[in-house]
Amino acid sequence: MPQAGLRDKAPFMPRYALQVEYDGEPFHGWQRQNDYPSVAGAIEDALAKLEKGPHKIAAAGRTDKGVHALGQIAHCDMLRDWTPFRLSEALNYHLKPHPVAIVNCARVGDDFHARFGALERRYLFRILPRRAPLTHLRGFVWQIKQQLDIEAMQSAANVLVGRHDFTTFRSTICQSASPVKTVDRLAIAQVETDYGTEVHFDVRARSFLHNQVRSFVGTLERVGCGSMTPADVQTALDARDRAACGPVCPPHGLYLAQVTYPEPLFD
Amino acid sequence: MPQAGLRDKAPFMPRYALQVEYDGEPFHGWQRQNDYPSVAGAIEDALAKLEKGPHKIAAAGRTDKGVHALGQIAHCDMLRDWTPFRLSEALNYHLKPHPVAIVNCARVGDDFHARFGALERRYLFRILPRRAPLTHLRGFVWQIKQQLDIEAMQSAANVLVGRHDFTTFRSTICQSASPVKTVDRLAIAQVETDYGTEVHFDVRARSFLHNQVRSFVGTLERVGCGSMTPADVQTALDARDRAACGPVCPPHGLYLAQVTYPEPLFD
Repeated sequence: MPQAGLRDKAPFMPRYALQVEYDGEPFHGWQRQNDYPSVAGAIEDALAKLEKGPHKIAAAGRTDKGVHALGQIAHCDMLRDWTPFRLSEALNYHLKPHPVAIVNCARVGDDFHARFGALERRYLFRILPRRAPLTHLRGFVWQIKQQLDIEAMQSAANVLVGRHDFTTFRSTICQSASPVKTVDRLAIAQVETDYGTEVHFDVRARSFLHNQVRSFVGTLERVGCGSMTPADVQTALDARDRAACGPVCPPHGLYLAQVTYPEPLFD
Repeated sequence: MPQAGLRDKAPFMPRYALQVEYDGEPFHGWQRQNDYPSVAGAIEDALAKLEKGPHKIAAAGRTDKGVHALGQIAHCDMLRDWTPFRLSEALNYHLKPHPVAIVNCARVGDDFHARFGALERRYLFRILPRRAPLTHLRGFVWQIKQQLDIEAMQSAANVLVGRHDFTTFRSTICQSASPVKTVDRLAIAQVETDYGTEVHFDVRARSFLHNQVRSFVGTLERVGCGSMTPADVQTALDARDRAACGPVCPPHGLYLAQVTYPEPLFD
């Protein structure tokens, strides 16, 4: 089972699913890269402290540089039969001081695969419209100065729900075989917080193209400001042309919030 | 009006109330000190960029080292007739890169005093019980490892509501003339978040003794863990003895949330 790692998976090796929370700021994304810190690299290094490596873990979402996670799911194969509690505690110990935490851990079957088995990925994007600079939320929301027209944004968002060719909303370096994806949900809500009224985007699909959520949010923010209309978004979608997309918004308001599998992974 | 500053208040000097939000982590508290960064010092330095100082501002709560604010209220006197919007924008510009923001500003009467005019101060304390290390909330909640018995904590909290001699819950360096204070409210609530179930303390009084909220929370946490009972808290209160207090909890879960005056300050 090469997808599970450099260490060939032997039948006696137990597989574990990990729910991972992280602050994306110090990392150049999920994927291990030479010379740059990555979330996968941090976890693989921690695994190597527990059992001699090299380790290579698979994850549901290969988040970009600066993107956060609340509910990233990864899996790893171990030689020893760790209790899930002890494995998560040991990993969290060795992950210090990285802002990465294993918040759930479960033993799963050999056929579980964090990436290929996922039925749905849910992303959260947080915008905070306010004039005053951020204090507690620096790096955790996208701050804009003007107020947003939520109704217009939701109308435009509705254009993007369903099965479409999302070439317009796809990074030019996207490696997906097809630009056709199905967006299950793109809901925009206002959420009162101690820091002002945030605008939350709840975006769900089985899988996403590269930069799809940030292309959506950047475009919908232009609608919220009045410089694009919902009809413009329809035109942009229909164009199937990357040049028709609004600006891609910054990564630090984006969170991989939840990944769904056929069966719940954790109690 | 010496309380308003080193610059004597002349009749033509307009007075402004400021609502200040800050991250307490980099500061040695609100009060200006020699050789240490303070929130007041940061704001006074920003004021000096607008009008030649020295400036000295008064605030509702002299928060300790590491304590945050959502709704600190301060006042300042200016020579020029600033619109509140321009004053807050100019201050926020000069406050960079400090994690301090003027989130509201209003022109107030000459008889307004941020400290002496306050009717009620409200503090929020956030505890997050969970085993996994913090990622996004580092420095913004007090993390503990065990779960808390909320009912027992609220029973013990009820002991502390009302007018009492709070010598037990007062720092030995407290400069208040009397240890008798009236606690209007001490309510404990569980709040679901993306990071787990937080325990929030809502504590309200006209004024507080030094370290009173952190002494309350540290003691109530001991009740939540089962190492003290509500009856023990009654005994501790009645002892009027600092030695009877539980441990003083760390500052970074504490927020000065709101200050109330006879009239609302901001629209």
